[in-house]
Amino acid sequence: MFLIIRKREPLRQSPSRKSKSTSQTIYQISIYSSRAVLNRLLTMEEKSSSKTQGKAIRCKAAVCRKPGEALVIEEIMVAPPMPGEVRVRIICTSLCHSDITFWKMKDPPAIFPTIFGHEAVGVVESVGEDVDEVSEGDVVIPTFMSVCGECADCISKKSNLCSKYPFKICPWMPRYETSRFTDLKGQVLYHFIFVSSFSEYTVVDVCNVTKIDPAVPPNRACLLSCGISTGFGAAWKTAEVEKGSTVAIFGLGSIGLAVAEGARLCGAARIIGVDINPNKFEFGKKFGVTDFVNAANCGSKSVSQVINEMSGGGADYCFECVGLASLVHEAYACCRKGWGKTIVVGVDKPGSKLSLSSFEVLHSGKKLMGSLFGGLKAKTDIPILLARYMNKELQLDEFVTHELQFEDINKAFDLLIEGECLRCVIWMQK
Amino acid sequence: MFLIIRKREPLRQSPSRKSKSTSQTIYQISIYSSRAVLNRLLTMEEKSSSKTQGKAIRCKAAVCRKPGEALVIEEIMVAPPMPGEVRVRIICTSLCHSDITFWKMKDPPAIFPTIFGHEAVGVVESVGEDVDEVSEGDVVIPTFMSVCGECADCISKKSNLCSKYPFKICPWMPRYETSRFTDLKGQVLYHFIFVSSFSEYTVVDVCNVTKIDPAVPPNRACLLSCGISTGFGAAWKTAEVEKGSTVAIFGLGSIGLAVAEGARLCGAARIIGVDINPNKFEFGKKFGVTDFVNAANCGSKSVSQVINEMSGGGADYCFECVGLASLVHEAYACCRKGWGKTIVVGVDKPGSKLSLSSFEVLHSGKKLMGSLFGGLKAKTDIPILLARYMNKELQLDEFVTHELQFEDINKAFDLLIEGECLRCVIWMQK
Repeated sequence: MFLIIRKREPLRQSPSRKSKSTSQTIYQISIYSSRAVLNRLLTMEEKSSSKTQGKAIRCKAAVCRKPGEALVIEEIMVAPPMPGEVRVRIICTSLCHSDITFWKMKDPPAIFPTIFGHEAVGVVESVGEDVDEVSEGDVVIPTFMSVCGECADCISKKSNLCSKYPFKICPWMPRYETSRFTDLKGQVLYHFIFVSSFSEYTVVDVCNVTKIDPAVPPNRACLLSCGISTGFGAAWKTAEVEKGSTVAIFGLGSIGLAVAEGARLCGAARIIGVDINPNKFEFGKKFGVTDFVNAANCGSKSVSQVINEMSGGGADYCFECVGLASLVHEAYACCRKGWGKTIVVGVDKPGSKLSLSSFEVLHSGKKLMGSLFGGLKAKTDIPILLARYMNKELQLDEFVTHELQFEDINKAFDLLIEGECLRCVIWMQK
Repeated sequence: MFLIIRKREPLRQSPSRKSKSTSQTIYQISIYSSRAVLNRLLTMEEKSSSKTQGKAIRCKAAVCRKPGEALVIEEIMVAPPMPGEVRVRIICTSLCHSDITFWKMKDPPAIFPTIFGHEAVGVVESVGEDVDEVSEGDVVIPTFMSVCGECADCISKKSNLCSKYPFKICPWMPRYETSRFTDLKGQVLYHFIFVSSFSEYTVVDVCNVTKIDPAVPPNRACLLSCGISTGFGAAWKTAEVEKGSTVAIFGLGSIGLAVAEGARLCGAARIIGVDINPNKFEFGKKFGVTDFVNAANCGSKSVSQVINEMSGGGADYCFECVGLASLVHEAYACCRKGWGKTIVVGVDKPGSKLSLSSFEVLHSGKKLMGSLFGGLKAKTDIPILLARYMNKELQLDEFVTHELQFEDINKAFDLLIEGECLRCVIWMQK
């Protein structure tokens, strides 16, 4: 219990945000964290499913009706899964920066009203026709990345970009281009990147769920749905960080720290964190960050100059986790000649261009690559990561700085925007 | 002999260039191609060396005194090698496009008077102090890329960019920043990228020579000094082309064709050649090119669209061998999502920028990399390539479309500029 309460200190340090309900939340979480309660929830699922299977479920969801407006928890109808789909009762969900990016977005591809949320864990309530892979009661992680298991990309070891159901910003289910959500007036509510976890129940394609070990605490498992997998995988799968190497990470948010965690477990000898917030170095140390460069405090030197000097010619792997072309250029500039890899992890604004010198690309021996979902194939790699967590190798606890109840979901947005939060886990049921 | 004469047909087809001396050249080459004559040359070397060792050698060189002006064969003085250096009698040299690029260049880094030439093979005449690796009489290939064997890059399997003597456009020897060439008036003649093979004798750092099997015909061995190694290595070492894969090559000059040859030997199933000269397809077929795209004849489609369509989603490996940023963009655009690699091989003009969409870099799973000297380490990889040639796997004969005597060196420039020549081998001695 102590650990959870301690993690909530940043929230408590902000008096204006300290409330009675927050204290209650902490207490609530301590209950949910016990295995006995989780088991009870799972058992409840099995009992209730027979009543709801094949029928629409009326439940609560946090609906966003206009960009930038607070989400409203309202009752909605969740249609039963179509063939190839799975209806999932969300146990908990966490908030990712991409939710905020699209929540703020006034133009397409953003579309409203919608149900955000794409980092979650839940229990299968029922499955549509032709679904054999999971069944009622299975604990699953939904992911925005699909694994059909049949296309050239899914068969290849080299790609995680399923061709059958490619990732796209799309308001529908991947297979049918329809929604499973309506409000009580019958208006369609749009899906968000194939997950929409800010709802007690959601429908996800079977290609977008990964069955996991139910022994994993849900407030840890949900993190693997997006951010932590993305960062960890970028170091592990995309960059293939080698033992003894030097790594530079631009941006020490959750994804950057997950890169550090991945690099640490790959055996990196030196992990240089770059951020403009020096407090991030304290977070970073937990995940193996050995050196810190304050990008706002480099004097007349560029960050790349500083890193080139401190690493004696550049880092073996440079990860850009902010989403700024200018930082990709800096990362490329302090990437070791001969073999250095620059990995783009951050999401830049639409239309942004990376500009590299032809001469340097030809002469430097450096490689430029991107990493979507860390290059991971969800169905096979998420279970590996969770097993490493259960084996006390991979650190997940340290990412969860805040936990809230569903009715306080808008506070999670505030916390992430304020920058003191790594991951805020939102529990769906009291 | 037939093969050599047939190869000279393009020259014969140009009546204005057909001359008595050309016919004589053909005859001369047939003599040099015989092992007996080569052995005689090698033996001559051993006899003569004791007379010249430690002394300046007076010999002929093709000096370029002003950009774009015809080279003038004149007598020069070649100083003895300094410690760590090797003086080499050139047997034959071939002309590469980079020689022409710098020959035309009016501004730095071009500098005159200079001795061009960087594709060659020769015999060690004498060595400076501290040189144990080669000795008098050894047959060696000089390369513009150094291998010191001691630095982090030389020790690593991942880099071919020696840190101790990095490749640079420099008018001096790599170790001392002085020249070994003077004209008969005592004026310094500048070196060209550490080789300067358009001279009967040259001085090269021991880090820039590779000892080879003397059984390899010199008019084939010289090709490995630059262009063919660059292309072949780009497919073999940099891209690591996999069996059964699809390859697209932008530009079917010697380097592009060498990429095809490398891809062919790596087991590529389909090799798509792109050029604006349809005659190149006939050359290409010899090196495994299976499909041809005439970039000047794609109608309303871009080349990348055509390749995406014909390959069902892009080539696994795209090589840009022309040196145009716009073609790198096209190559990247028709590189297979998920695992495709775009390899920059062509040398673009100084200051040129590559511009890629941040979104595509992040979401496509494609990789961008450059390949200098094909990622090869000269001292270890050139002997492998030559052994494969001697084993009749690697095709080198097909690259040599023309052969000339040293006094006709300016014709080699014309031939390469006219575009009908792949490689013109220039024999130094009659």
